[in-house]
Amino acid sequence: MNRIANALFRIDQLTLYRVTLPLRKPWKTAYGVQTGRELIFLHFHEAVSNQSGWAEVAPLRDPFYLPEYTQSTFMLLKRYVTTVIGCDFRSPQALLRTFPAIRGNWFTRAAIDIMGWGAWCLATQTPLYAALGGQRKTVRAGLAFSADTSVETVCSRIHEAQSQNVTRVRLKISPATNIKLLHEVRNQFPALEIQLDANGSFVPDTRGLRQLQAIDELGFQLIEQPFPYRDFVSHAKLQACSKTPVALDESIEAVDDLYTAISLNACRCVVIKPGKVGGLSNALRMIEICREHNLSCWIGGMLESEIGNSVNLALASVLDDTWCHDLNPSLSHFPMILSDPELSILSTPYAGMVPSTRPWIGLDVDEAALAPFIQEEYTIAAHH
Amino acid sequence: MNRIANALFRIDQLTLYRVTLPLRKPWKTAYGVQTGRELIFLHFHEAVSNQSGWAEVAPLRDPFYLPEYTQSTFMLLKRYVTTVIGCDFRSPQALLRTFPAIRGNWFTRAAIDIMGWGAWCLATQTPLYAALGGQRKTVRAGLAFSADTSVETVCSRIHEAQSQNVTRVRLKISPATNIKLLHEVRNQFPALEIQLDANGSFVPDTRGLRQLQAIDELGFQLIEQPFPYRDFVSHAKLQACSKTPVALDESIEAVDDLYTAISLNACRCVVIKPGKVGGLSNALRMIEICREHNLSCWIGGMLESEIGNSVNLALASVLDDTWCHDLNPSLSHFPMILSDPELSILSTPYAGMVPSTRPWIGLDVDEAALAPFIQEEYTIAAHH
Repeated sequence: MNRIANALFRIDQLTLYRVTLPLRKPWKTAYGVQTGRELIFLHFHEAVSNQSGWAEVAPLRDPFYLPEYTQSTFMLLKRYVTTVIGCDFRSPQALLRTFPAIRGNWFTRAAIDIMGWGAWCLATQTPLYAALGGQRKTVRAGLAFSADTSVETVCSRIHEAQSQNVTRVRLKISPATNIKLLHEVRNQFPALEIQLDANGSFVPDTRGLRQLQAIDELGFQLIEQPFPYRDFVSHAKLQACSKTPVALDESIEAVDDLYTAISLNACRCVVIKPGKVGGLSNALRMIEICREHNLSCWIGGMLESEIGNSVNLALASVLDDTWCHDLNPSLSHFPMILSDPELSILSTPYAGMVPSTRPWIGLDVDEAALAPFIQEEYTIAAHH
Repeated sequence: MNRIANALFRIDQLTLYRVTLPLRKPWKTAYGVQTGRELIFLHFHEAVSNQSGWAEVAPLRDPFYLPEYTQSTFMLLKRYVTTVIGCDFRSPQALLRTFPAIRGNWFTRAAIDIMGWGAWCLATQTPLYAALGGQRKTVRAGLAFSADTSVETVCSRIHEAQSQNVTRVRLKISPATNIKLLHEVRNQFPALEIQLDANGSFVPDTRGLRQLQAIDELGFQLIEQPFPYRDFVSHAKLQACSKTPVALDESIEAVDDLYTAISLNACRCVVIKPGKVGGLSNALRMIEICREHNLSCWIGGMLESEIGNSVNLALASVLDDTWCHDLNPSLSHFPMILSDPELSILSTPYAGMVPSTRPWIGLDVDEAALAPFIQEEYTIAAHH
């Protein structure tokens, strides 16, 4: 699927950043409320092209979504990244094989893998969407927000989204979500693609199953990750008795997790996020496996900056147009534009974004704009 | 199963230690060679009894066994432990529920859970084995060492173990292990319980399966974790065509992992380690689930000090005498005795250890002996 040919590249300098960007509005999910977003940025220099690029991974500040958290990602990158700096590689996969075989810590591995794709793209002057085997097209971008508010607030946000030709909305729910609100929303917008995302907040007992059966009757497009992330068995039980497709996000980190879900018939859809699954190479493998097994998949977001969104956009261009992806232009969540050019969204014929045709993801980061938000940084250069 | 009654306890002071103990001999597994052992100790003061106790968790220095590593465990404990200090609790489970609901990071959660059991035991002056519902008996202690050496070395170590009435030996293997050596060992010791532990080092492809089929013919007691830790499907395939029981260790962290393994018939045995599974409360649940589903289980070790070994010993006393456990007396792996009294092993009628009848695990730690090995420490006290 991907168009990666053997081509020499070498990363001879890297600066790691742990930054906290302020959020325009607090972000509410079943995990709690965030007011700032801690992220990991990588600014690398590729020697063959003599050009620099940016990469990003976006675990949370606390291990509430998945086990990994930003301070750990930063620490592990600092500890092990030296193994890939100053070495010649011919593919992103070769670079990743040189990195120590750590277990889990998928965002850490993703940072290395994504940087490898970036360096290869710069060395060959290839845009990422093309390297991944994607298409230059308008990729549908959906919106997500909390349902734990009033029915008026949710409906007015959906109206606003529809006025921008957004074709899919995802509502963040929890067992505390008012079922009448969901009913009302479904009735007011019968034709809109509306998904529900529970972020693992339902308890897989009789009461939890009853709550989800009530939701099943409402005919939403799908329900994402109702149960805790390691609980494949309960998801399989739910899928067996639900009309609504079950999607798995947190449960699918490793490629092996996807095979476990397939073996148990635990879901019909999979959310692929390059950071969560250990990078673009694993994301492409998962897309292939989903095709082979007739599972739907789309590219999810992690409240990333323009860097992460550009990578997700290029990856989404690999897929056909069935599903909408989580893609955010500049200024969606953060009050400042970090990238040059800014990341923009089209609203005709529908809300969507087009991958850059410039090498790698075609953007630079305004380091002066970034400076106030840096918590920690670390630079490593190859010895000559 | 456990004998925990509601009884008030309160931890009003805690010191966390990250220590590196020198190993007497380098320790070789499929993960590589270790010369020192980085461990996390907790020294807590319980207010009702006005007594202090010790707890330990033992991830590795690097995330090569499971995703968690000592520096991360220390960091997360430091970040969140304040939520349980100075509060009244009536059970270890209540204490754990107050700790933030972090995902994964099982050793971190285990540290909190085990400290909760410790504080409850001190407040009620109960020995841990009794609190867990165990028996005061001689628990069989087995030995483990690498098979990636000469047949003479392996056989002489087994002879030495037999002279101490050790009834079970576990050989650490990898795809590089000489199959002729395994054959020779099996022939020389036909009646001995010999287990193989691959620590996830085999690749689940045709070649890996062929290697394991050759080993299957030799009639060892079991083979532990041949494939990578998230790969339940390949373990299920192997178990379906093997006479040798498959045991899972790394794959089973969460209680939900155990249900996944059961659903897929991925194993017949499970290695339970209080640290790896998030504490003693989860370990007891897993023992119960294994009983219900006719899976064998035993208590594994993580190259712990006397503290961790004492906790593992008390937990092992809950099980019947079918299986041997990984239990190490003082001076097995480290050149110094840290505990008072030292942890000793009996050699009649067989190599085994007896749980302490004193409150909690009945030992104190020689802080002067520990001091030279402390890498990092952090003390927190309740505000009065």
